[in-house]
Amino acid sequence: MRDRKTKFIIIIGCGRLGSELAIKLSKNHNVVVIDKDETSFERLTKRNFIGFTRVVDTNDMAALKDLNIDKADMIYIVTPDDNLNFMLAYGIREINEEIKLAARVNDPLKKAIFIKANVNLFCPIEDSVNQLVEELDKVDEKI
Amino acid sequence: MRDRKTKFIIIIGCGRLGSELAIKLSKNHNVVVIDKDETSFERLTKRNFIGFTRVVDTNDMAALKDLNIDKADMIYIVTPDDNLNFMLAYGIREINEEIKLAARVNDPLKKAIFIKANVNLFCPIEDSVNQLVEELDKVDEKI
Repeated sequence: MRDRKTKFIIIIGCGRLGSELAIKLSKNHNVVVIDKDETSFERLTKRNFIGFTRVVDTNDMAALKDLNIDKADMIYIVTPDDNLNFMLAYGIREINEEIKLAARVNDPLKKAIFIKANVNLFCPIEDSVNQLVEELDKVDEKI
Repeated sequence: MRDRKTKFIIIIGCGRLGSELAIKLSKNHNVVVIDKDETSFERLTKRNFIGFTRVVDTNDMAALKDLNIDKADMIYIVTPDDNLNFMLAYGIREINEEIKLAARVNDPLKKAIFIKANVNLFCPIEDSVNQLVEELDKVDEKI
């Protein structure tokens, strides 16, 4: 029986963000990382990644269905392509709307579309901007 | 007389992060955005940016010296190139070690080098990973 604390996590996109996330989560969870490009997994094999990788055409929803996404506790959609991320999030919810997912939005101007579709999103650029503005407030305090 | 609350800010790198930061800060501060590629400023001209842009070879420290960086309250170094960001941060501090700056590190593995050189850094990838791990904790609570 699988420990309830150990989760089955799918990460779509093995770029810099996806690979770092995979390495961190694979310490405590069952992680499958998906990318269309096999060489992207080099980011994992060079480090302490304990999990599975699968080369899948991320544009092929049928291929994604074969990945047991139904059983995932969480799916992270973190490719650099906002349109693909949106399509994937939307398509996965069509398969099973109960699946928890988080989709990356790179372009803050596209955020509204994700929100309107009720897709759980995160926007690294916006988070960085907020963090950097806070840095400026620290300068304020010193003046 | 310049309002003490209004600051002179230099942003080096007008990619997605640099441009969003520039748009936000330009509402309240004097902002100069620098990039080696003039077309990158299109990200600003299409939006509500109220500030200055300058095409400068970011690899040319002498050209950067001409930008009154000495007078900046804050310099954000946010190009996508970690090596350039490190060199710029280091070089700017050589000119004036009192200047407040924040340099972007894209590769978490390079973070240690910035820390060792005592360069104020931020690492968007790492911040995103932490945020996404928190999303997983939310799933935990629901189980």
